[in-house]
Amino acid sequence: MDSNHDLKITLIGTGTIGLSFAVFHLTHLKSPSQLTIYDTRPDLEKYIQDTLLSFYSSSSPPIPAISEINIAQSLKSAVEGAHIIQESGPENLPFKTALWKEVEQHATKDALLWSSTSGIPASQQSREMQDTSRLLVVHPYNPPNIMPLLELVPSPDTRAELIERTQEFWRARGRVPVHIKKEVTGFVANRLAFALLREAIHLVDAGVVTVAEVDDIVQNSMGPRWAVAGPFKSYHAGGGAGGLEGFFKNIGGTVQGCWDDAGRANVGEEWEQRIFREAEQSYGSVDTTERDMITRRVLEAVKLEKQTSKDD
Amino acid sequence: MDSNHDLKITLIGTGTIGLSFAVFHLTHLKSPSQLTIYDTRPDLEKYIQDTLLSFYSSSSPPIPAISEINIAQSLKSAVEGAHIIQESGPENLPFKTALWKEVEQHATKDALLWSSTSGIPASQQSREMQDTSRLLVVHPYNPPNIMPLLELVPSPDTRAELIERTQEFWRARGRVPVHIKKEVTGFVANRLAFALLREAIHLVDAGVVTVAEVDDIVQNSMGPRWAVAGPFKSYHAGGGAGGLEGFFKNIGGTVQGCWDDAGRANVGEEWEQRIFREAEQSYGSVDTTERDMITRRVLEAVKLEKQTSKDD
Repeated sequence: MDSNHDLKITLIGTGTIGLSFAVFHLTHLKSPSQLTIYDTRPDLEKYIQDTLLSFYSSSSPPIPAISEINIAQSLKSAVEGAHIIQESGPENLPFKTALWKEVEQHATKDALLWSSTSGIPASQQSREMQDTSRLLVVHPYNPPNIMPLLELVPSPDTRAELIERTQEFWRARGRVPVHIKKEVTGFVANRLAFALLREAIHLVDAGVVTVAEVDDIVQNSMGPRWAVAGPFKSYHAGGGAGGLEGFFKNIGGTVQGCWDDAGRANVGEEWEQRIFREAEQSYGSVDTTERDMITRRVLEAVKLEKQTSKDD
Repeated sequence: MDSNHDLKITLIGTGTIGLSFAVFHLTHLKSPSQLTIYDTRPDLEKYIQDTLLSFYSSSSPPIPAISEINIAQSLKSAVEGAHIIQESGPENLPFKTALWKEVEQHATKDALLWSSTSGIPASQQSREMQDTSRLLVVHPYNPPNIMPLLELVPSPDTRAELIERTQEFWRARGRVPVHIKKEVTGFVANRLAFALLREAIHLVDAGVVTVAEVDDIVQNSMGPRWAVAGPFKSYHAGGGAGGLEGFFKNIGGTVQGCWDDAGRANVGEEWEQRIFREAEQSYGSVDTTERDMITRRVLEAVKLEKQTSKDD
């Protein structure tokens, strides 16, 4: 599977994440015929022809011949001979345990088995497999045809060699796979983002700022900053010669003050209806095609500039 | 003061923030002679000549004639006749109360009085002023010559007209002033960022990821995403036709799971030495000139693309 010419990838599930991964692979494989798609959806071939094109609208590479993609008629035929089998099906444990149990029977021994789940750990999904060392979570940041991050979350059983091969695959394609060492709830990216979201909800609920003002604040401060240098690197720089320690020495009191005063909103509480309505009034229907196009330019700007400064 | 030709701006304090604001104003005023700088630092003139140039290294506009800047010899002469008086002095309440008490005696009646503080509310700084309605906080995101956000935090006494004029000033210069309605601890941007930082500290401390991996994750997911669309807008889009409500309907369980499991690190606890050391080992001395140059490109990419799509 080292040669991209022979690589065969099978995608199971054709929701938003599955199709976005299809676009990613199609723009990196030598031929669309190296990709196989399987789903129990009726009229799958027509659905893919119709839907996949819309995912290309925000994508600059040319559209490959979609008709050359293999549409599998059974899970068995989808899986046989594939080097990578990537599942983006329903977020439902019985579905996933049954799927991997069957996949295992037909997949070649050294195939990489990946789940795109955002919440169901590999150790649960693999419960009915004979060899539980074969599976790991490869959680994208939506949409994966644009966002570089992949969270690699193995179960305690997953073989190290499979994690390494998965890292190599994504790195060779310019992506950023990060190995998450424990199967924590929600993995890492969502936990970080949801921590900020909780405080944002609190501040809107307390009448300090509006929904749109929170977004204005983030888009014009930590958003662009963190696109270039993450929080630890930023605060380490902010501490000058003293680094992160200097930063906490200077304003640790303010940091702790913010933490002590932080909100503790919960799902299902009163804030929901007001904030849901405010978001709807502020944004209505968001044009994600525009957002994705701008995000792509931002990522290109960061990549280009970082490359340029390395070359200096 | 509507005409930029006649506008006179006085900056008090020449630390990092003060000098960065100086660069911002110099690139927007018609002439450097419209800017006055005051500090009690010895050798002020030489210090400014030497230091200000280094702030321009990450700045694309041409460097104005720095020798034309007015260096004030006293607070009285610095303040008299100025339309805007902006304080970026030490984060120390007695310093600020004494400063504003004296500024008030010499400033023209309708001058805008701004403090760059990141933590001392206007209602405390104005305690010894005769007219407490004159002052507001204008808190930048560092460095203000590059980052668009300004948090405008009035005290309950601050006159609405002064907030409006302050908003107009920054908007006319392409910046994003956001009116924070309550004097909450740490204002809004830092509260949001510190909420995420607390969870990041917890996850590193728990051995889930390293300091550098947290930064890799943020730089390749929510950083670029939030540079384009803030958290509410992103999750509203993520909910599809159901908006933010649909988002919580779909994965509210995972969100609450992350919140319930969130860390509660505190300043001064055991994690500090390990994480400070890890940041130092990962980053040593950060090249902020490079970071600022890349950040500028990112902001330009977002601005250009948003403008282009508006024109379509």
